[in-house]
Formats: sequence, structure tokens, C-alpha cells
Amino acid sequence: MNTVEPHVFIIMGALGDLTRRKLIPAIYRLSESGVLGDQHVVLGVDRDGNRDDASYRSWVREALRGADLKTDSEDAAHWCDRRIHYQSVGAGTDADYHALAQKAEALEREHELPGNRLINLALPLDAVAGTVAGLGKAGMNRSPGWTRLILEKPFGRSLASARSLNEAVHQHYDESQVYRIDHYLGKETVQNLLVFRFANAFVEHLWNREHVEQVQITVAEDIGIEERAAYYEHSGALRDMVQNHLTQLLCLVAMEIPSGFTPEAVRYEKIKVLRQIAPIQPEDVVFGQYVGGSVHGEQVVGYREEDGVSPESDTETFAALKLEVANWRWKGVPFYLRTGKRMPRRHSEIVVYFEHAPVSIFHPGDFQAATKPNILVVRLQPDEGIGLQFQVKSVGDPVTLTSQELSFRYSDAFGALPDAYEHLLLDVATGDQTLFICDDEVEASWQLYDSMLADHRIKVHPYVAGSWGPAEMGRLCTQWHSPDP
Amino acid sequence: MNTVEPHVFIIMGALGDLTRRKLIPAIYRLSESGVLGDQHVVLGVDRDGNRDDASYRSWVREALRGADLKTDSEDAAHWCDRRIHYQSVGAGTDADYHALAQKAEALEREHELPGNRLINLALPLDAVAGTVAGLGKAGMNRSPGWTRLILEKPFGRSLASARSLNEAVHQHYDESQVYRIDHYLGKETVQNLLVFRFANAFVEHLWNREHVEQVQITVAEDIGIEERAAYYEHSGALRDMVQNHLTQLLCLVAMEIPSGFTPEAVRYEKIKVLRQIAPIQPEDVVFGQYVGGSVHGEQVVGYREEDGVSPESDTETFAALKLEVANWRWKGVPFYLRTGKRMPRRHSEIVVYFEHAPVSIFHPGDFQAATKPNILVVRLQPDEGIGLQFQVKSVGDPVTLTSQELSFRYSDAFGALPDAYEHLLLDVATGDQTLFICDDEVEASWQLYDSMLADHRIKVHPYVAGSWGPAEMGRLCTQWHSPDP
Repeated sequence: MNTVEPHVFIIMGALGDLTRRKLIPAIYRLSESGVLGDQHVVLGVDRDGNRDDASYRSWVREALRGADLKTDSEDAAHWCDRRIHYQSVGAGTDADYHALAQKAEALEREHELPGNRLINLALPLDAVAGTVAGLGKAGMNRSPGWTRLILEKPFGRSLASARSLNEAVHQHYDESQVYRIDHYLGKETVQNLLVFRFANAFVEHLWNREHVEQVQITVAEDIGIEERAAYYEHSGALRDMVQNHLTQLLCLVAMEIPSGFTPEAVRYEKIKVLRQIAPIQPEDVVFGQYVGGSVHGEQVVGYREEDGVSPESDTETFAALKLEVANWRWKGVPFYLRTGKRMPRRHSEIVVYFEHAPVSIFHPGDFQAATKPNILVVRLQPDEGIGLQFQVKSVGDPVTLTSQELSFRYSDAFGALPDAYEHLLLDVATGDQTLFICDDEVEASWQLYDSMLADHRIKVHPYVAGSWGPAEMGRLCTQWHSPDP
Repeated sequence: MNTVEPHVFIIMGALGDLTRRKLIPAIYRLSESGVLGDQHVVLGVDRDGNRDDASYRSWVREALRGADLKTDSEDAAHWCDRRIHYQSVGAGTDADYHALAQKAEALEREHELPGNRLINLALPLDAVAGTVAGLGKAGMNRSPGWTRLILEKPFGRSLASARSLNEAVHQHYDESQVYRIDHYLGKETVQNLLVFRFANAFVEHLWNREHVEQVQITVAEDIGIEERAAYYEHSGALRDMVQNHLTQLLCLVAMEIPSGFTPEAVRYEKIKVLRQIAPIQPEDVVFGQYVGGSVHGEQVVGYREEDGVSPESDTETFAALKLEVANWRWKGVPFYLRTGKRMPRRHSEIVVYFEHAPVSIFHPGDFQAATKPNILVVRLQPDEGIGLQFQVKSVGDPVTLTSQELSFRYSDAFGALPDAYEHLLLDVATGDQTLFICDDEVEASWQLYDSMLADHRIKVHPYVAGSWGPAEMGRLCTQWHSPDP
């Protein structure tokens, strides 16, 4: 375990939803588990000028209670008293940021900290550039120790806005200081995809166009848009899920073997994949939007009936697309990405279809029935695991074949898996950028999808809530993997 | 399911141990399950001239009771009355066999059977040639329908005796009539080895010297020699297990893809393997003999203390050897065979070690610790299944690797597996020779081992009952797969 040096964890947007739901519980768990060492404090920063340390500690205690940490409330209170501080940046004037810088320095003196800082921007997209500028002008891009800036998605909402966001960040921070979080990369199963590929010789031998017929990546959500209409109406599935999570998974599946498990090497190979993807044609994209239906046996309204959504909205809540990584390894192998809200179940998986046996010696007359492809299913959530479907002889005579699975379940081997977000925060604290997305990756990813964002040739087809998507997805692929067991 | 035509099942050696333990229970189960159809009878034949149908039916009922078939004794009695007959061949004169032939014809008239016959020679090796001659001279090598001859192991005790046995059989029976039983080939798991190899494209791609480092085949018994000293003293592990069962498994692992799943094609490929094995050197063989120890927590005597065994016996109860299949697919890949009595547990498995990853990007400085080979374990008994060991990321940070298994258990998919012996008898009844050993295979297999049978350079090393064999086995292979979980 790398050691975490003494530090201040600064949260910009300290009263926000992400802070309450994710950041505070994750920092608390890391702190209590001891991996952060003893010398660290949290400085919450928001616009509310009426808060002080004491009232923010109450807010944090409330957040911890809501997070169901099975923590004793006295322990939590004690932790807050020792660790939590607050500072307002009010309207965000230069003077406000100057005061923030002074508060940070004062805390470092008080707690004898060497000036290492994590600054997490838990803010809406339109507040990021201004905050970065404010921090930078107040000198908070440098400190006596290290300063690391954590950015949360979305990283822009188009290629142009992503570029301008990167430029705004780079005005004050080196790319080596920046940690863009995609929480999918913090999942054990996702990291293990790299280990599975690069520590198992048999996998690497099969992992190419000679042996793979197609790849399908599915991230299905059962929830709708919850209270996020204002955000989602201007986002949609392509921006919200495909451009980041699904594209990251695609990169990990398709990338070449990096020269080492280092940030530079891994990012280099991911960018290479992104740049080798052939332009995606409008006819290779299917958008959908859920109409009223039933999920888990409960009636739910359609997207256009959700609070805050226009009754004529054309925002896509489902996206499926087909693309090609046009390099020596993958040319000709279709990659399918699929994501949607209000699907029957929450389910994320990567499915690799290996080639069919060329002939069947067991049923020479019936090729289709007799040769099924071997299918590798990497289940990301829930029920994390790996399954390799293979043909086996059914019991009895004569020889008939049936598909069974060689399977591995994480819970059998490791019990409960750690939280992805926690894992990533710890990586920031130890300065490991491997699982974070760099500027070039963000832009290369937007480059892929930018043309679709305003392409009216891509129709939005209705699908019933509780189904796996609109019928039109069958146009891309006749053989979508069924996530049902 | 192929239909079984009406027939007589003739058992030569009807009062023997094999008949009681295996044949009668298997025929009963097949009969009661309906797969043999309604028109079939059993004719038991032995030397006892004082038996008749009635007293043999009692003997059969007793055998069925002993076999724990969960059958109602009235059902069993009714079955015996309908199906079971007896005929003595006394001293085995021509007249005796002539009487047998007449009895068979009489039964066929009585039960309106078309003259299809299975003749099972459930006899000690030294009685086989004489019985075949008696049957042949009485015309029982042909009948108005088909006549099929079932031979039980051992098929000779050296190359010369195997040849002379084959000649004796062929004097009266065509090879197309002969079914040599190796009950290992009736196991579902063993048959499935062929399906696993030839119906799964990914397996075939890995199944060669490019990707396989070594193969280990282990058949471990926990029992000693039981009451079979007279047989075993003149046999030993090489004749009793290696020459037949282990060599058959080796053939199935190493064979090329046959042109079809037909007897001719499968046998052709197996013979090709046997003929491509390089001569086995004495230094590549280790023999052992158990001395007193403890198995499953019980004290057991050494081999030389067993009843009927010479106190100076040099018979091997353990054999391990290394060989090479010197063809394009396997040249340079060591195949290890290992079998023994009084091992810690009953355990049969085929283990294929795939190559190591050439480098580890996760632990560049520590190659040995970081790259383990992928290992495929086909468990034949007990707990039948397939396991593919692979490297996985341990939970947490930094990246450390651990071996886990992609696994498949037959019992999960299919429940209890059918009896191997039953499966093979049904194949004889339907005329399918695929899983039986032909004359050329027997001789090619003896050819491999003949030189070792009297090679005094091969020492017999003691090993403690309840261990996995003598320490000298480490000379052949430093990495024997541990059958322990």
C-alpha cells in the first residue's frame, strides 16, 4: 500500500449532492480505515456565507447518517470535530478566493501539514471554469507540497466545450495535477479486465480479429432520470453514458498491451484506440426514449411525463451504436455499445463473442445447431464475475451439445467489493493517475460523438419502460446478448 | 436415441465377480429404463453344471440386492423370471459349446428373437482364447442377426500375448464384431473431453505446442489391491492402469481432430498418437510400491504384507512416466502419466498447463511471482468438472495477482452422471464402436510399454500408503499438480 502523505482535502461545492452522497462517506471510510494516515483534514468550500465550521460539521454528520455507514454517531461527531472545516467563497470574487487561500494556509499551520492539497470540484459543469480561474488567481494551483485537482463528469458537453474546459484548466493547472474521475474505472471488475487480458496468456492469444466475432458493451439502468430533469434534458444518454463510461470500457477491451501499468502507458494506448475508431455513421446509431411501462413490477411514467421534462422532448434515454476499431487487431470486428434508462434491471456487462467452430464433427449435417460461438461475459454489476460459455456434451446418448458456463464470481473469492469512488480518491491521494482520464482522451472521445449531437437523421424511437430498448436496435445487431440469466 | 433391436445378452462367466458387481446391475438398469426395448433376454453361461434357470435367477436376485439399486425385490424377482436363463458349459468340450448354441437358438425361438446376440466374456485372461475357440467352433460367431463380442481388460499382458489374443479372436470373429471395453471411455467426463476440444473453437486454438507447456494425467486410487493379489502380483500398475486407462486418456488429449465422430475416424487418430510417441526411456519411468501407512485416517499394511503377496515382491503399485508425442502439434511438450494405489484420495484428472505470459506489466521486476501459467483441470472423478485457472486482481491496491478458477461442475448442470459401464453396454447393443478399443490400438499401446515390463534398470521405490507417491517422482517433473483443493 502506498503511503498517503499528510494533506488537506478541499471540496469545492461542499454543500452539494455529490458531496453528501459520495464524497463525505468515501473520505470518512478511507479516514477511519487508516489508509489516509492520521494527518489530514477536510475543508468544505461553498457559497453559503452563513456557515461556519460548527454548522458544516452538523451538515457532514447528517450526510454520514444518511449514508448508512454503520458508524456510531459519537465516533462520527468526534471525527467531524477533528477533521472538518468550512470556508465560504460567497459570490466568488478575487477577495473570496484570497480568503480561501489564507484559510487553507492557516489550517496547514494549525495541523502542521506540509501543504499537500486535493481540490475536488464537486460542481455543475458551468461553474467549473470560473472556480478554476478563481483558485488559480489566488495562487491555489501551487502549494508548498503537491496540489491535485479532481474533476467530475461531465467533462464538457461537446468537443468544443471540452476543449475550452481543458484550456481553462490548463491556464492554471498542469495536466499532471489533474484527475478526471470516471467512477467505472474504479470498479474492481473493470480494473480486472486489464489483469484478465494482460496476465493470462490464453486470453491475449484469442483477443483479436482472428478469433473474435463481435464485442457488445451494455450498461443498463433500471432507474429513470430521478430529480435530474434540468441536467438530463440537455444531456441525454449519449453525453451522459456513452461518451464517458461506455467509451472507457471500449478502450479497455480494445487497447493494445501497454508497455507498463503506468498512467502514461495506459493513457497512450487508450487514446490510440479512440483515434483508430472509424467515423460512426448515422445509420449505425439508434436512439430511444422510454414511454410509460412497468419496471420491477411497478408502473412508471414515460420520459416526457417526468417532472421538468418538456412534453415534446426529443432527448434520448437510450442509445445503441455500432463502431469499428480500424486497426490491425480489430479491423472488421463490430463493437456494439448500448445503454438506457428504465430497462428491466440494472446490469452492466462486456460480452466477447469468439468465433464459431468452423465445422462440427458431432452433427455434420446441422452446422447452425451444432456450432455455437464461445462467449465471454464480464459482468461488471451486479453479481460481478466472469463467465465463459462453452459447448459441453449433454448427459446420455447420442452426443448432443449444450452451452454451459465456466464461471467465476467475485463474491465467492473476495466477498463484498470496495466502493469504486473510494478507490479512485485514494489513487488521487497517492498520486496515481493510471485510472483517470487525461485531456487528450476526453477530446478524442468527444470527437467520436460530436457529429451525432445535432444530427436530425438519428431518430428517437419510443420504447416501453421495462423493456431492453426500441425494436430498431435490431437493425444494428440481430444477436444482442440477453442480460437475463 | 438409437433403437436397440431384440437380442440375447450372453454372459460367459455368469457366476463371476464382474458379472455380479457390474454386468447384472447395468443390464437391469438399462432394461428397466426401457432403452433395451421389451424383447431381450439374458443367458448366463458358466462351468457350474448344477445350476439351472431357477437357481441362477436366485443368484441374480442376490446380485441385484447387493448392488443397492433401490429396486423393489418383487420387481427384481419378476424381471429375473422373465429375462434370466442359465446354461452350463461344464469343462468346455465341443459338445458343451454345441449345447450352448442350441440353448441360444431355443431361447430365440421361445422369445421370438431374430438372432441378435451380445456375448460378453467376463472371464480371466487365460480363459478367453479357449472360450472364443469353443464359441467359434460351435458356430456362435455368426447368427441370423448380428453377433457382437465384448472383451474385458486385460487385453493381454505384453505385446506378444496381446497379439496372440487378437489372433485367437480373429480366427472366429471379425474386428467389426469386437468391443473391447475400457470403462474410462464410458465416463461422461471423458467423452466430453472430445466435445470440449472439438466443439469449442477457443480450445482448439490453444491446444498445441505453441500454447501448452505440459500435460499431466493422474489416476489415483485410495484402495489397495483388495482380494486381487493373485492377479495383481503378475500385473502391477503399468499393466493394470497405464497401458490401458491412462494411455486412452492420453490419446484423447493428444489426438488430432477426427474427420467425424465415427469409430473409424476416432480410432485412426488414436492409433496415430500411439505411433507418434517417442520410445520411452527407462530414466523417464518411476515405479513405486506402498509400505504401511494411513489412508483416510486408517492404518493400512504395506503391499508386501497384503494377503497373497510375496514378502519380496517387486510388483509396482505406483507408476509415473514422462513421454513425448513427437508430432507437429506436440513435439517438445512433456506428457506425464501417474497412477498409484493407496494414495490419499481417489482422484482422476487431466491437467493442461498453458504457457506463461511472456512478461508481466503489473510486476515488471518480479517475473516468477507475477506470471503464472493458466491451467486447465479436467476432473474425471470425483466431483466431475472443468476448471480453468487464471490470474485475477486481488481486491484493493496496489495491483497484486492471485489465481482463481473459472469452473464448471457436472453435478450443477446435470445432477448425477450415468454409470460408465451401462453407457458402454448400450453402445454395444446399438452397434456403436466409437468408444471401444480396436486391435491395432491395443497392440500399439503394448508396443509403448513392452520394453519396460522386464527392465531391471527401473527400480521400485517405496512410498508410504496415504502419500502421493515416492519422492523419486520429482526427478521426472518438479511441478506435479497437487490434486488437493
